[in-house]
Amino acid sequence: MTVASHVRSDRLQADIDTLATITDPARPHTRRSFSPRFLEGREWLAARFQQAGLSTRMDEAGNLIGRRAGTVPGRGTIMSGSHSDTVPDGGRFDGILGVLAALEVARAFDDAGISLCHDLEIVDFLAEEPSDFGLSCIGSRGMAGALSAEHRALRAPWDENLAAALTRMGGNASLLDTPRRTDIRAFFELHIEQGIVLESEQVQIGVVDAIAGVTRLEIVFSGRADHAGTTPMDLRRDAAVPAAAIIGFVHERASALARAGGGHVTATCGVLELSPGASNVIPRAARLVVDIRVSERAVAEDLVAAIRTASEDAARASRTTLSRFAIQSDTSPTPCDPALAGLVETAARTQGFSTRHMVSGAGHDAAFVARLAPMAMIFVPCRDGRSHDPEEWCTAEDAARGTMVLAGAMELCDRKD
Amino acid sequence: MTVASHVRSDRLQADIDTLATITDPARPHTRRSFSPRFLEGREWLAARFQQAGLSTRMDEAGNLIGRRAGTVPGRGTIMSGSHSDTVPDGGRFDGILGVLAALEVARAFDDAGISLCHDLEIVDFLAEEPSDFGLSCIGSRGMAGALSAEHRALRAPWDENLAAALTRMGGNASLLDTPRRTDIRAFFELHIEQGIVLESEQVQIGVVDAIAGVTRLEIVFSGRADHAGTTPMDLRRDAAVPAAAIIGFVHERASALARAGGGHVTATCGVLELSPGASNVIPRAARLVVDIRVSERAVAEDLVAAIRTASEDAARASRTTLSRFAIQSDTSPTPCDPALAGLVETAARTQGFSTRHMVSGAGHDAAFVARLAPMAMIFVPCRDGRSHDPEEWCTAEDAARGTMVLAGAMELCDRKD
Repeated sequence: MTVASHVRSDRLQADIDTLATITDPARPHTRRSFSPRFLEGREWLAARFQQAGLSTRMDEAGNLIGRRAGTVPGRGTIMSGSHSDTVPDGGRFDGILGVLAALEVARAFDDAGISLCHDLEIVDFLAEEPSDFGLSCIGSRGMAGALSAEHRALRAPWDENLAAALTRMGGNASLLDTPRRTDIRAFFELHIEQGIVLESEQVQIGVVDAIAGVTRLEIVFSGRADHAGTTPMDLRRDAAVPAAAIIGFVHERASALARAGGGHVTATCGVLELSPGASNVIPRAARLVVDIRVSERAVAEDLVAAIRTASEDAARASRTTLSRFAIQSDTSPTPCDPALAGLVETAARTQGFSTRHMVSGAGHDAAFVARLAPMAMIFVPCRDGRSHDPEEWCTAEDAARGTMVLAGAMELCDRKD
Repeated sequence: MTVASHVRSDRLQADIDTLATITDPARPHTRRSFSPRFLEGREWLAARFQQAGLSTRMDEAGNLIGRRAGTVPGRGTIMSGSHSDTVPDGGRFDGILGVLAALEVARAFDDAGISLCHDLEIVDFLAEEPSDFGLSCIGSRGMAGALSAEHRALRAPWDENLAAALTRMGGNASLLDTPRRTDIRAFFELHIEQGIVLESEQVQIGVVDAIAGVTRLEIVFSGRADHAGTTPMDLRRDAAVPAAAIIGFVHERASALARAGGGHVTATCGVLELSPGASNVIPRAARLVVDIRVSERAVAEDLVAAIRTASEDAARASRTTLSRFAIQSDTSPTPCDPALAGLVETAARTQGFSTRHMVSGAGHDAAFVARLAPMAMIFVPCRDGRSHDPEEWCTAEDAARGTMVLAGAMELCDRKD
């Protein structure tokens, strides 16, 4: 790889370190989308784009884009990037690495004296993290024409609607009813894994096959709040009992599906609320939220059906009522483009890095870009799997390896057709 | 029964209705111990005791006592009563019925022209409900010499210690180091069941065999707060999974013990707290409180041991840590006196009332009086099992039946030796 050898880890690290200083000082690392701090970060980013010789603009969806023109007009665009906003008390790498690595790749092409046939675009998507408007991936949705009028009417606690906020960010909400781009030939996103698989298997590069779909269920069992001491076991209607059975069922069934090779399958009960929640009162109600992530749509549908049957059975057995079984949200898995994933694999192998195919259990901007163009994702390990956490960490070596693979894959992509 | 036929339901109901009006008007029915409202209730009660010809006093533990002298000096005292304080948003019958029924029995003896060999004492125990000092059954503990120096040093939120509050209630905390009474020959307490057994079996009178012991366990499982989407099922340490297993185990095991005739056995998980409690984060910790009530001490010990083993197994299976397994509180069951319970049974049967032997799953003043003297309890049905609730209800017929049984049992008791 010609370009990969021009990737400079020191330059990348300096950018990561500098952007990390632009944070709410009381809560490092916090740079919430739509905030003055976020705009400060973007101002610095735009300056860095310009210093790298990129022509820099905002698109209609509030995404910051730096462009390096290709040699063959009309050949289309190869794009790479991620997001620079963070969750509250977030980290230094989630999203940020993908933006700054793409910038480093642009500089490496220059340093290597390589011209590309395609235009190259580096993008910082607006508000990938859940924003104060109650919506995530706002910039990538907007680019893909997936930011509906309902979305644009969402209001933040400070009583601004999203359309107005988009204008404030430099976008133009009135132009978002249709997909904005037809020129993108390929999109690559480098990201920390946000999990523990690469680290625990000591693998350097994750080649992402798909971004999991997320199905979120809300389940409520209703019983009777009787006295814990005076109500015989066979007369009680204890809502905690079926809820506990479902926690066990969800864990066992998802584990079995994952073992049986059903692709990526996780299912988690992270929320269980017992009412009234007193030690001497039998729970009247138990509310459970189940988070399901799969790479095969049919698996999600089967799992939801199985959980519904198990919930009905558990309610019956405990003389309680299944008073709510609702799909709160439901997105389908997004496959990555196999050809682009193959370029990532080749770029990594050529440079001697170990690889592993995997599914992203977390959502990413790439899932929306996939509506416009083929996309691929590259994962690098992060320490202890931590993310959305001030302790989030990616070593300089892993960040550099990911950037070199990104550079190599983009170079291969440019030559491919 | 001579005396029972002189029990007047109208007089009893009028007393219940009047005492119900002495409540925090914003939160009926609230008459918290140590409050001005409570003292107002007691002032009315003392007047009613005096109107019934009882010589009325406060004892050292702050209990209000009305006395009807017996004909044989030195024969000792037959005592009956309960408590007039309530929980916040409590009811009209819990405790109150036991005090006013005992008063009605005293009046019925007068109306019947019956003199007893024994002195008869009607008692309103101080602060049976959990008080602002963090302690319950203060008056009955004090009478039994079970109100320790540590208890007397407890402070209420308004920064008064219990010793001072006892003085304010008319007691004398300095005299409470030893049991105060050696003259009590028998104690009877009439109470609403606070459960649904009598109502669901359509039985009129519950003859209590024992007051259950209460053992309270706190169990904490510690795992790892990883990302719900990116952490494979086989790499997670999900603290909710062993907690759910224990909820199921506790319910199954207690149900089996109850079915197998291990006396009164209930076990309840009314509290389960997951941390951080977010739908997309695997629970780092799960805290569980288990409330166990049994009539046989050995059953509690075996059950606690079984739950401990199950908790260790569940932690191991889920790769989590059992970071806490603590007995928060532990009291032994208190058997009622079989001879006195027999008198209750006879009194009920003689009057044609259906009876059922049962165990009290809730605590009562009688459990402390049992340290001084033989005791028995009489239960009457309460609507829907509700208690500690503004909707708590006992029909006039049930209240009258309970009072007639109490009267009959006390008459039998006086004649017995």
